[in-house]
Amino acid sequence: MTLSTLTGVLQGRADDRLAEVVARLEGFLASDPDLSFQVAAFHDGAPVLDAWGGPHLGEHSVTVPYSVTKNTIGLSVGLLVERGDLDLDERVSHYWPEFAAKGKGAVTVRQLLSHQAGLPQATPPLSWEELLDHHAAAERLAASWPFWHPGSAFGYHAITIGNLGDELVYRVTGRTLHEFYEQEIRAPHDVDFFLGLPASEEGRLVDLLPMIRPVSDTTEPAFSALGPVVFASMAGDVDLALSPRSWRYGHPAGSGTGTARGLARLFAAAVTGIDANPAFLSADTVSQIGQQQIRGYDEVLHQHDRAHAIVFQKPSQQLAFGGPRAFGHDGAMGALACVDPDTGLSFAWTIVRGPWPGGADPRAVALARDLGRILS
Amino acid sequence: MTLSTLTGVLQGRADDRLAEVVARLEGFLASDPDLSFQVAAFHDGAPVLDAWGGPHLGEHSVTVPYSVTKNTIGLSVGLLVERGDLDLDERVSHYWPEFAAKGKGAVTVRQLLSHQAGLPQATPPLSWEELLDHHAAAERLAASWPFWHPGSAFGYHAITIGNLGDELVYRVTGRTLHEFYEQEIRAPHDVDFFLGLPASEEGRLVDLLPMIRPVSDTTEPAFSALGPVVFASMAGDVDLALSPRSWRYGHPAGSGTGTARGLARLFAAAVTGIDANPAFLSADTVSQIGQQQIRGYDEVLHQHDRAHAIVFQKPSQQLAFGGPRAFGHDGAMGALACVDPDTGLSFAWTIVRGPWPGGADPRAVALARDLGRILS
Amino acid sequence: MTLSTLTGVLQGRADDRLAEVVARLEGFLASDPDLSFQVAAFHDGAPVLDAWGGPHLGEHSVTVPYSVTKNTIGLSVGLLVERGDLDLDERVSHYWPEFAAKGKGAVTVRQLLSHQAGLPQATPPLSWEELLDHHAAAERLAASWPFWHPGSAFGYHAITIGNLGDELVYRVTGRTLHEFYEQEIRAPHDVDFFLGLPASEEGRLVDLLPMIRPVSDTTEPAFSALGPVVFASMAGDVDLALSPRSWRYGHPAGSGTGTARGLARLFAAAVTGIDANPAFLSADTVSQIGQQQIRGYDEVLHQHDRAHAIVFQKPSQQLAFGGPRAFGHDGAMGALACVDPDTGLSFAWTIVRGPWPGGADPRAVALARDLGRILS
Repeated sequence: MTLSTLTGVLQGRADDRLAEVVARLEGFLASDPDLSFQVAAFHDGAPVLDAWGGPHLGEHSVTVPYSVTKNTIGLSVGLLVERGDLDLDERVSHYWPEFAAKGKGAVTVRQLLSHQAGLPQATPPLSWEELLDHHAAAERLAASWPFWHPGSAFGYHAITIGNLGDELVYRVTGRTLHEFYEQEIRAPHDVDFFLGLPASEEGRLVDLLPMIRPVSDTTEPAFSALGPVVFASMAGDVDLALSPRSWRYGHPAGSGTGTARGLARLFAAAVTGIDANPAFLSADTVSQIGQQQIRGYDEVLHQHDRAHAIVFQKPSQQLAFGGPRAFGHDGAMGALACVDPDTGLSFAWTIVRGPWPGGADPRAVALARDLGRILS
Repeated sequence: MTLSTLTGVLQGRADDRLAEVVARLEGFLASDPDLSFQVAAFHDGAPVLDAWGGPHLGEHSVTVPYSVTKNTIGLSVGLLVERGDLDLDERVSHYWPEFAAKGKGAVTVRQLLSHQAGLPQATPPLSWEELLDHHAAAERLAASWPFWHPGSAFGYHAITIGNLGDELVYRVTGRTLHEFYEQEIRAPHDVDFFLGLPASEEGRLVDLLPMIRPVSDTTEPAFSALGPVVFASMAGDVDLALSPRSWRYGHPAGSGTGTARGLARLFAAAVTGIDANPAFLSADTVSQIGQQQIRGYDEVLHQHDRAHAIVFQKPSQQLAFGGPRAFGHDGAMGALACVDPDTGLSFAWTIVRGPWPGGADPRAVALARDLGRILS
Repeated sequence: MTLSTLTGVLQGRADDRLAEVVARLEGFLASDPDLSFQVAAFHDGAPVLDAWGGPHLGEHSVTVPYSVTKNTIGLSVGLLVERGDLDLDERVSHYWPEFAAKGKGAVTVRQLLSHQAGLPQATPPLSWEELLDHHAAAERLAASWPFWHPGSAFGYHAITIGNLGDELVYRVTGRTLHEFYEQEIRAPHDVDFFLGLPASEEGRLVDLLPMIRPVSDTTEPAFSALGPVVFASMAGDVDLALSPRSWRYGHPAGSGTGTARGLARLFAAAVTGIDANPAFLSADTVSQIGQQQIRGYDEVLHQHDRAHAIVFQKPSQQLAFGGPRAFGHDGAMGALACVDPDTGLSFAWTIVRGPWPGGADPRAVALARDLGRILS
């Protein structure tokens, strides 16, 4: 396998089998002078694509890819499962007794981590003071009634999945998710993707730019009784990606920082192994955490055909990034990171100004799918 | 809080903050001389709107608002839960041993009361003789196979939820639902909403008038294998709202009688308290009975985006009467009664001739939602 | 009840009450000279329609009606339930210990047989060598992780339901599904429908002809991550219906052979009884195996409003062949066999060239529904 150095508007290196993909990426840049992205892929543990282009991003720039950050929750949970420290079929209250309050005694770890527990928000809604505290939000959520009977439905726990995952890891390990991810995954595997932004990396941060709504788009938002409540906390002057307060803390639901290279390497280290080392998750653990847990109507987003594994998203009509065993997570502003155990592809895409209306950039979704096909 | 006496086409009283709402209601009456409705709302236990208008209804007129009556089942069940006499997670057969027949041994109270038990009809279909008997229909239902594997789906038990709820209350208390509701809820809280119609109130009854199908409506009914079977019993000369035999008996699925004032007061007594008394249900019980149990495709109605709490309906796309913790029930001919614990609003609307094609009058749905916003 | 001999383009016999149906069938033949079908119906155990027409089929011709074959799995399972040898609520691993591997320990027989176990394919995909072996595919499936968390979704196990059903029957009885069906159902009830094609019957086989896609049909197939994987095994030179290798073996998912008369008799023998004998399944067993287990989105077909009983299909929008207790199974190339316990109708339709895009011929679906109405 040979990586050639790229010499056009797209910088970086690419496997010789990817000429069509390189041409496609160059075409994106040629047709939009404002476009700036990083893209990276590993195949069976070896880099096959590591490139960037556009005026806003360089090789070492880091961005906050919003919910792509949630992949760190899923992989940390995976490592606990791998080690036998966490059982997905156990009740949450086994690890976290206070969670049994208010009709939640029977909720399993599996349900909690696949957005089925009915806690996309506490009652009354959580403040940012609480959300940016390792335990305060978790305590409030544990004391709340679920919005639906747990297990009977699911809805995107857009922010609270970070607090719930953080607390669960803490109850199992005595360490926050941040500490566990840093110490057990990021540092040992030299992954350029952080929960929060260490002071040492601040000079590399590039802010995302707002999406541009086409004047022709007059879509009305769909009714959702839950939506306004869930996102109530997001009002005000804190933003998961754009507020220093948020990305310095590093909310696991959306405030990680890093490069596409780091994200692709993260999945490769977990699933295929890198640098001639074995993957840090066994094939059985990968099957467990990547297995679809729920699919259909999302109570919070009021969207159909959403699907989740353990924290991760699964491929769906709008997010067709791989085969039936693939998993990963996109971000609200266009980024995407995912892996397909069947093709051995780990993929990541970061972007400074994602296309309207948000969620994974469709170009990235198609790239992930096509790279898997080309390389396998 | 001041209630002003209304002096226009709309009669009654309204809180001074509701000028916009009063103007809207007057507009309804002005644009349709046949329209007759009652509307009532309590906020945090105090009346804020108590009004009526149109040629067919007066302040003390009572109507039979069809399935709005089902709110009496949900609130009676809530009182049993409050007292610790009924556990939603217990098997139905614990209270009612005969119910275990024909593959129903594992059905929980929670499933039974949220239209998941698969018993929207007995096999063969129930007659009105059976449906208007406190125990005959329940006996037949207990001896029937469910139409779907209990818990795997849900479908509106349009009539039988009344018989099932009646029998469940009887098995727990030794009293029929009628007796229990009358003795424990209606009389103590002086609620002008009865199960059935006492002889003393007969002079107040105003019959509903049929909806008028627009000539432009050529919609074909959707296919539903279950629909014709479920509604088979309704053929013939008995109608839940229009037959003296039915409303004298007071089928809990649809044959209650009362005023909008009574219905709003009923929910206020349950959830916020009235007359400076505490609510008869605690906040925890309200959370339990108002929690969404099931949402999506309704097997009987062949409609999508239906949602149920314990007996009650939850807000949905077509029934957006409140926030995610709101609950209540509409009727086939336009009436609606609901409560939102988060805004403290109890609301009710009765109408003599509801708008085509039936279900909650969209004007009432919008009023409930807007009143909650204005007052909180 | 009198059956008259038919004398027009439609040959065979029909009950005198079915003049409208006979005229309709003659109309089909008149308008399409290529059309060839067999149609048969029993009512309360007596034949009421037994007819055939068109250039490709005679009275004794047999075809391979693809998934209509799956009815043999459902009825064999029913007989085991009837005898108390198989409990639908038992775990699969109780009968088949190896099945507990890879997160499948809690899967019930009920889930396995209603396409909920997440095993529409093994990982990696099964070869035809394995699929046409009584135990090899089952062994591979038992060693695979499900594609979704069992019980959280369903998807058509188009081929593997045959291997899974075969192995389950083997574990319970020590006989393959083929042996059990032949010895306990087909031979004793003289049913002209075989699993596979005995050498003695080979001269009667008529090959199906391909469907013709209208040039005006430019529909793109919907995205399904699972679809390509599930049907991967079907590529190559083996076809369930058209390959001698397949129909000689008789895969229970699709390679049965027989007449419409045989299929209608099969259901009549099971549900209503034939030749003055009682049905071989009791009403309770019929209720159990015909009860809807799951309905909604199919993960494999990426279609909405699919519904399954124990193996069987249930009526749905696209497959409205009867009332809420009806069940049966169609085939990819137009055939259909079904029964409705409430009307006493058993029905079957075979066809040499089914109409695009496949699945039950809509003419057959309407016939089944209308016959039930006319005769009851």
